[in-house]
Amino acid sequence: MIIDRLWARVKERGPVCVGLDPSPDVYPPGFLEKFGSPAEAARCFCREIAAATGDLAACFKVQIAHFEALGVEGLRAYRDLLRELRAEGHLVIGDVKRGDIASTAAHYAQAHFGGEFRADFLTLNAYFGADALAPFLPYLEGGEHGIFVLVRTSNPSAADLQDLLVEGRPLYEHVAERVAAWGERFRGASGYSLLGAVVGAHRPALARLRPRFPSMFFLVPGYGAQGGTAQDVAPAFREGNGAVVVAARAILAAHRGKPAALARFPYYARAAVQAMAEDLASCRP
Amino acid sequence: MIIDRLWARVKERGPVCVGLDPSPDVYPPGFLEKFGSPAEAARCFCREIAAATGDLAACFKVQIAHFEALGVEGLRAYRDLLRELRAEGHLVIGDVKRGDIASTAAHYAQAHFGGEFRADFLTLNAYFGADALAPFLPYLEGGEHGIFVLVRTSNPSAADLQDLLVEGRPLYEHVAERVAAWGERFRGASGYSLLGAVVGAHRPALARLRPRFPSMFFLVPGYGAQGGTAQDVAPAFREGNGAVVVAARAILAAHRGKPAALARFPYYARAAVQAMAEDLASCRP
Repeated sequence: MIIDRLWARVKERGPVCVGLDPSPDVYPPGFLEKFGSPAEAARCFCREIAAATGDLAACFKVQIAHFEALGVEGLRAYRDLLRELRAEGHLVIGDVKRGDIASTAAHYAQAHFGGEFRADFLTLNAYFGADALAPFLPYLEGGEHGIFVLVRTSNPSAADLQDLLVEGRPLYEHVAERVAAWGERFRGASGYSLLGAVVGAHRPALARLRPRFPSMFFLVPGYGAQGGTAQDVAPAFREGNGAVVVAARAILAAHRGKPAALARFPYYARAAVQAMAEDLASCRP
Repeated sequence: MIIDRLWARVKERGPVCVGLDPSPDVYPPGFLEKFGSPAEAARCFCREIAAATGDLAACFKVQIAHFEALGVEGLRAYRDLLRELRAEGHLVIGDVKRGDIASTAAHYAQAHFGGEFRADFLTLNAYFGADALAPFLPYLEGGEHGIFVLVRTSNPSAADLQDLLVEGRPLYEHVAERVAAWGERFRGASGYSLLGAVVGAHRPALARLRPRFPSMFFLVPGYGAQGGTAQDVAPAFREGNGAVVVAARAILAAHRGKPAALARFPYYARAAVQAMAEDLASCRP
């Protein structure tokens, strides 16, 4: 199962997930101008980052919004990038955060698991409840796809709704309970389910959820540029595995203020992944 | 402000919102085969429906998932369809239900308000809280765009999370409270805010929310094929306005079992909109 492949990658390489969020504000000076279109620049930037970091990363997370903002050509670049990364053997999370009623969700499942935008894993929003996830589950049956459902996010306003108390416990814990129940039948040899959770670098949430949901794999954004530290993400792990930690800007823009950024930005990205892996190693028991 | 234009359309034409969810299962026999690609068929089907119903509809809601499933060419068709409908003076809701942290949401806002996929209104998911909506609000300042935030949806599992009790009241009511607060500064001459809510054809939710949030415009899915009746949606209205009611399948597939469906499906769609408008008229005080 693909969750076992992710588990093996974490075991072998550590838990860094490189976030591919391309945009002009992370490109080195002069990069954008080398390309005929912003979409082509976005795809090529991600390809260069992936080439420089792929052997150190557990997986890549590609943020579709950055491509959607570039219109039809942007989505062509997203499609091609996913195809290329997967063809090279990388595990790819399509960060789409879709969520809708079942008849609509079936079309999203077709788009992102069955069709042109095929990813190994997807992020999904569960505000609609169980039936909104149902159309994605047939794709999990073969073991080739996995899902991370939004549980507790890493942004400052996350508490607005996610931390509201329901029967004395935060809403996000109720979401996690449902995800765990839906995912029970999709457990791999590693003990983890194909149905995981997005839980930000928020120490209290991670500490609360990890012991209660031992078979839930966590996708942890919010480290680095968003403020999370190794200390914050430490509770995400169980025996050093069971989670990948995302950094995007800290890796993509690691060239900032450094010499020869245009030529050497992949090198700086690689150094940033190495530094992050070392930082995280200090907190994985 | 665009919410006042929507209010005026409802006053003039009634509250029918035609849902454009194209897919082979709503096309008349022989339709798909007339086109070179599924994407082109989807766009042309929607154009024909719009031409036949546009003078009776308050607005159109276009479901992006149906186009996303068709890949890059599908999204090209979505883009072109929105451009064409808006150029003809129709009010168009891009049913995208996006939601993400602020830095990512800024890219979605660019895509769907500022860029190629520009719509008049968008549907958004607020699970991330206030900062996830913030990047969309500058587009509301000029009065040319509006938003419907998911509050209480119409699917069977909606209750899984949305009806959980927080301080004795359902979660969706807390979401509505936040939407109302965020939208207070965007009120138009009609008294309604540019920040509205998606509330399904669920009579208890509508009856609960309408009196408490008099300036909130409702987008009401779930009528017709999803099971909602005029009785169910009746509490959505305030003096006969303040809501649009969506039907998709009941209009798009109205040709089913009728003679000469391939030639006459736009006529059957028009008749279905007329019947729906009459049905709803009976419940708008």
